[in-house]
Amino acid sequence: MDHDIYLDNSATTRVCPQAVEKALYMMTQCWGNPSSLHAKGSAAARELMESRRRIAAVLGAEPEEITFLSGGTEANNLAVLGAAKWGQKRGHRIVTTAFEHSSVLDSVRQLEKEGWDVCYLQPDRQGHITPEQVFSAVTPDTVLVSMMAVNNEVGTMPPLDAVPAAIRRAKAPALFHVDAVQAFGKIPLRPGRMGIDLLTCSSHKIHGPKGAGALYKRRGLYLPPRAFGGEQEGKLRPGTEAMPALCAFGAAAAALPPIPDSLRKMRELNTFARQELQKIDGVILHSPPDALPYILHLSAGHVRAQTMLNFLSQRGIYVSSGSACAKGARSHVLTAMGLPETEIDASLRISFSHENTRQDVQALCQALQEGLQQLVARP
Amino acid sequence: MDHDIYLDNSATTRVCPQAVEKALYMMTQCWGNPSSLHAKGSAAARELMESRRRIAAVLGAEPEEITFLSGGTEANNLAVLGAAKWGQKRGHRIVTTAFEHSSVLDSVRQLEKEGWDVCYLQPDRQGHITPEQVFSAVTPDTVLVSMMAVNNEVGTMPPLDAVPAAIRRAKAPALFHVDAVQAFGKIPLRPGRMGIDLLTCSSHKIHGPKGAGALYKRRGLYLPPRAFGGEQEGKLRPGTEAMPALCAFGAAAAALPPIPDSLRKMRELNTFARQELQKIDGVILHSPPDALPYILHLSAGHVRAQTMLNFLSQRGIYVSSGSACAKGARSHVLTAMGLPETEIDASLRISFSHENTRQDVQALCQALQEGLQQLVARP
Repeated sequence: MDHDIYLDNSATTRVCPQAVEKALYMMTQCWGNPSSLHAKGSAAARELMESRRRIAAVLGAEPEEITFLSGGTEANNLAVLGAAKWGQKRGHRIVTTAFEHSSVLDSVRQLEKEGWDVCYLQPDRQGHITPEQVFSAVTPDTVLVSMMAVNNEVGTMPPLDAVPAAIRRAKAPALFHVDAVQAFGKIPLRPGRMGIDLLTCSSHKIHGPKGAGALYKRRGLYLPPRAFGGEQEGKLRPGTEAMPALCAFGAAAAALPPIPDSLRKMRELNTFARQELQKIDGVILHSPPDALPYILHLSAGHVRAQTMLNFLSQRGIYVSSGSACAKGARSHVLTAMGLPETEIDASLRISFSHENTRQDVQALCQALQEGLQQLVARP
Repeated sequence: MDHDIYLDNSATTRVCPQAVEKALYMMTQCWGNPSSLHAKGSAAARELMESRRRIAAVLGAEPEEITFLSGGTEANNLAVLGAAKWGQKRGHRIVTTAFEHSSVLDSVRQLEKEGWDVCYLQPDRQGHITPEQVFSAVTPDTVLVSMMAVNNEVGTMPPLDAVPAAIRRAKAPALFHVDAVQAFGKIPLRPGRMGIDLLTCSSHKIHGPKGAGALYKRRGLYLPPRAFGGEQEGKLRPGTEAMPALCAFGAAAAALPPIPDSLRKMRELNTFARQELQKIDGVILHSPPDALPYILHLSAGHVRAQTMLNFLSQRGIYVSSGSACAKGARSHVLTAMGLPETEIDASLRISFSHENTRQDVQALCQALQEGLQQLVARP
């Protein structure tokens, strides 16, 4: 496995040694229940608080503004469905985009079935959404704007800045939720200064283990819970805390390289990858140059994505054909962007981590080229 | 920490070496996203399936009948709230007991607010509920009976056998949900043969890590989801799976000693503990002799539980004053059993695991005796 070239870091990441070590410590040494009122419980509670501080620190937030839960999907569900419950007497409109993650889209669709008016902003062919679209969508009866910080398939960054301004101009009661699963630890995020009320983070996209996530919730905002039981997480998310994963999440956050350093490295790697990929006949790049450099989306000839993916996988090179959560269904993101079906069906997502190198990119390009030569084009 | 005497195994358990090893493997070697369509993804998916098989095996169930989620609370929430949604056109009554875990009680209270008719069966002073109570509670418009297999504070076992018979007699459309968090791996459970439709299990009560649970769902039963997003867990519980914890849960289940062996050991240990504890002046046992021997509930004189708990904790002996989830609030279980407040406020829960020994019990008894002598009684 050591020679694997892993370029699917938007699906999940290798768990970093610091996170592994913390999870191991929580399982073998500090395995008490943080709600237990004896020394073994308080030792665990201290570790959980330390992890909360570490997540908060990345966001310039207070530990009390962080709610731990099982991952990005649960956080997005809580943010959207909780905000709708919060706002049901304040208005009946929700603004989002057509290329959110399915955990946001399926939540708002659920609300649409229940009678909510949902506006889906459409990205253009490059995956861009304009501030003007935001301004014209937010109305006085809008109670929630939910917009991702970085699109998980193409890497574009919708105009978060426009949202608080649009809410103010419309005098809307709206909460602003940001799905920052692909952005947390990668771009500077200060929800307190950005007018963001709710923000979703996930552990396993930043080299922490799967099974941990966090929802930033602005201090003073009461969100109705979706889960019922014990006193954990201020009763917003009861249940014994997933200690190994949650504490390892904090360790992974603390181990992240400084954002400017990794952004610089990613820009260089992305530029190099674009140069090399454009030399290959049949490759079309979909991610625009201003996309987050961690993600590079392309179509490779007319070879079905899954065929190419298998070809690469057999060579120990791992990329994806869109979001892992969609498990091979046609991408709603690319469909929303209006790409032709042939390009969608041949589309691949390369997603980097600060662990990747130019050699990884070179190996990918060589294998892609071989694949395009060897694989029979779909009629 | 090696000389600690941990007698709080109903709150949480030490993670067993087999589970630690599996979690470590999932973090360092097999860290792919099981939804990813390359070799790294399918390796992870195979591990998840193996864990599902292991959980199913304990219940004599099929792997497809197991839905993984973050823990007992989420499973209880999904079972109760999902069953209510399932049944809302079939009836409007729910039968449960007054001493369920808060994740069931707070869910049915939520439903009560929404207009459901909820019947709470009252346990007697010993923590018993009779089959007659069940039969008279289940009516033709009952859509859910939710009853725990083992009470988490006193260890008594409500009459699960009576429920399917009562449902049949009433010709009710009811689903039968069992919260088996304190029973899974400790008593034989065959939901398929016991007329159980839904059954909750938790990892961290059986020496697995925190952050993993399972809901058994009878084959063919469609339960409306409470979470929205990807394709995971048959869309009933979307979101990237908590791989280290979930696979370690399976490893912990596979490592459990045979149920008859551990039950025999626990009966011996419990009998010994009762003998020793009854020698101490001021100790009153609350768990009746037919309670599951893993749990032994008592009051120690008139010393406030938290005071005694601290006294014991300082000596490296860990017990609890009821459910960890209640964090020191007065036990609703003992209140439902009608115990006097003075006994409730001085109540301690001893909970064993197959790792405990007679020496642990002797150390506890000695410390309890010292505590009763040294601590000033509350007026």
